Amino acid sequence: MISQRAKNLDPYVPGEQPKDREYIKLNANENPYAPSGKVLEALSHLITHKPLSLALYPDPDSNELRSAIAQSLNASSGVLGTMGTITQQIELSISPDMVFCGNGSDEVLSVLFYSFFNADKPLIAPEHSYSFYPVYCGYYGIPLNKIPLNKDFTLDTESMLKASRESCCGLIFANPNAPTSLALSVENIRKMLEGFPSNKVFVVDEAYVDFSDESALCLLNEFKNLVIVRTFSKSFSFAGMRLGYAVAHPELIEVMTRVKNSFNHFPVDIAAQTAGIAACKDTLYYAENAKKIIAQRERLIDFLRKNGWMCYDSKTNFVLAKKDGISGKEIYEKVKTDGILLRHFNTPVITEYVRISIGTEQQIDKLIKSLEKI
Amino acid sequence: MISQRAKNLDPYVPGEQPKDREYIKLNANENPYAPSGKVLEALSHLITHKPLSLALYPDPDSNELRSAIAQSLNASSGVLGTMGTITQQIELSISPDMVFCGNGSDEVLSVLFYSFFNADKPLIAPEHSYSFYPVYCGYYGIPLNKIPLNKDFTLDTESMLKASRESCCGLIFANPNAPTSLALSVENIRKMLEGFPSNKVFVVDEAYVDFSDESALCLLNEFKNLVIVRTFSKSFSFAGMRLGYAVAHPELIEVMTRVKNSFNHFPVDIAAQTAGIAACKDTLYYAENAKKIIAQRERLIDFLRKNGWMCYDSKTNFVLAKKDGISGKEIYEKVKTDGILLRHFNTPVITEYVRISIGTEQQIDKLIKSLEKI
Repeated sequence: MISQRAKNLDPYVPGEQPKDREYIKLNANENPYAPSGKVLEALSHLITHKPLSLALYPDPDSNELRSAIAQSLNASSGVLGTMGTITQQIELSISPDMVFCGNGSDEVLSVLFYSFFNADKPLIAPEHSYSFYPVYCGYYGIPLNKIPLNKDFTLDTESMLKASRESCCGLIFANPNAPTSLALSVENIRKMLEGFPSNKVFVVDEAYVDFSDESALCLLNEFKNLVIVRTFSKSFSFAGMRLGYAVAHPELIEVMTRVKNSFNHFPVDIAAQTAGIAACKDTLYYAENAKKIIAQRERLIDFLRKNGWMCYDSKTNFVLAKKDGISGKEIYEKVKTDGILLRHFNTPVITEYVRISIGTEQQIDKLIKSLEKI
Repeated sequence: MISQRAKNLDPYVPGEQPKDREYIKLNANENPYAPSGKVLEALSHLITHKPLSLALYPDPDSNELRSAIAQSLNASSGVLGTMGTITQQIELSISPDMVFCGNGSDEVLSVLFYSFFNADKPLIAPEHSYSFYPVYCGYYGIPLNKIPLNKDFTLDTESMLKASRESCCGLIFANPNAPTSLALSVENIRKMLEGFPSNKVFVVDEAYVDFSDESALCLLNEFKNLVIVRTFSKSFSFAGMRLGYAVAHPELIEVMTRVKNSFNHFPVDIAAQTAGIAACKDTLYYAENAKKIIAQRERLIDFLRKNGWMCYDSKTNFVLAKKDGISGKEIYEKVKTDGILLRHFNTPVITEYVRISIGTEQQIDKLIKSLEKI
């Protein structure tokens, strides 16, 4: 009874959620802090004072939320410099019709792939980046041209550009990238865009940008083919509720909206819309949390390097690290016996590493104690 | 920059949400009652006492929710006879591994179509049924064989079966059907299943079943190829939050789970899971609301028939009605001037009709006053 396409699937194994004991979860790049008081208040208000709205279909276009996101991005001026460390103020003019909302950035990516990437030419992406890019390519039958990373795990932007100019339906990468944790500067993204076909869509997935120094939002005015994808799951402490968005030229957003309305009946639910609006008005709280996470990240990197580990200059809420003489799997297993979950990938090139999500100060204390034994 | 497939799309126009005045919304088959006190309490408890859980990814398999749904279906014994009118008690033994949860029954349908319906043979469906069946066929490239309804709007089950035996990848219909509001008896569904290829999936979409007398759940033990789809959006007053499920043999559910985990990163969010669990433990409240809605439906049907309208024997929370000498569009427009929204379809065969969702007693009072002027 199974369809042919379902038979061919290679199932994704979700991150483990063991139940045998209480674990400190440093394996899913989640935020260790709860959503802000204003978000919780807005949700309580919805439930207490507008319970009937739970029974009615939500606004399919998330109009109020799109306005709140646009306003908050403009107010942040955090273009070069995001939540963590504002390095330069740049005037932004993002309008609500430049924003598209979805159930997590995964749904936004799904609509994006459907809208802009064809089956006749390959999508260009780094060999190691967010694991769902190949998944959506498989789902929609889009060929994928995976460009290997440089030896130091930075993006090989020259090869990516060369491949794009030869043949592509578009280009995507995460910045900062996962699982490498490294960021490409906005100046380098601008250079890529200048050499990239202007009639193809260029996607920068900024899931982790708020733990970094720079965002590519400031390039939107110049490049009409640029799409920036963001999520509320990381810096906005909202992974449990699913909320993400894309920012791009209104004409691209219009296509995504049309695609969504053509086949997808599941809008962002009323609770997620309500919470998202409240979060956009309370960015200071999230910026403070991002700073705490960055401080713990730097502390962990410092510890690791002083103790003979190799790790990268992370611009995210996680660290990719390895140690000579012990495999990634062994590190993962040893730390697990201390009640801490890390992420280990059984993928060539990165199998020696563990990916460590940054938690609270107390969680990193415990992790360091556990790592000292290695 | 637009993909070929996106260019070919025929965009769905979502139901109108005019903002020029406060309307009584009888146009989207929503439930006029808020979710139960226990659901609101569970949500408040989540927000107040477990705010950190909003920051963590939810259980991708909705395990606790699946157990709660299975338990509630078994406890209801509402097999023949659902919420509205229990006509016969039948022992059910639905296990959690027979339940699949998604973000509304629309997502469940999407996974179902991907999992079981192929591109080589047509899916059999009634010509008039839920408008998203053709949409998902288009999305996945599944040919659709639409079988016209009988003149009295009942399903032409013989033609559907004949077509299925000639060539099909599966069969689907809504029962009760939309927008006709008519139900097919379980006895007739059994007869269809007996004549239907046992190696193809047979889907009964029971979105409106709780306003009806019978469910096909009692046939699950006998027919391993039967899938029943349900939603929390209608009888469970939860359209704003997106929650639906399928019930079927564990092997079919396993395929759907694998498909979902292979490409779909967006699980049911923590708030919807929490509320769903609470709702399953509070079915009496929802059954009472279903009874109120059924009473208003019968009152409206009675009024319509006594006043020269033609309408069908609805087993849903809506009524499909027409009146000689006035078009569906005119009725819709006249009633709108009184601040009441109905649904009018610009589709051949049903364009003379309006679809009226059943609201509270007060709302139906106002509607009747408005209709009296026609």
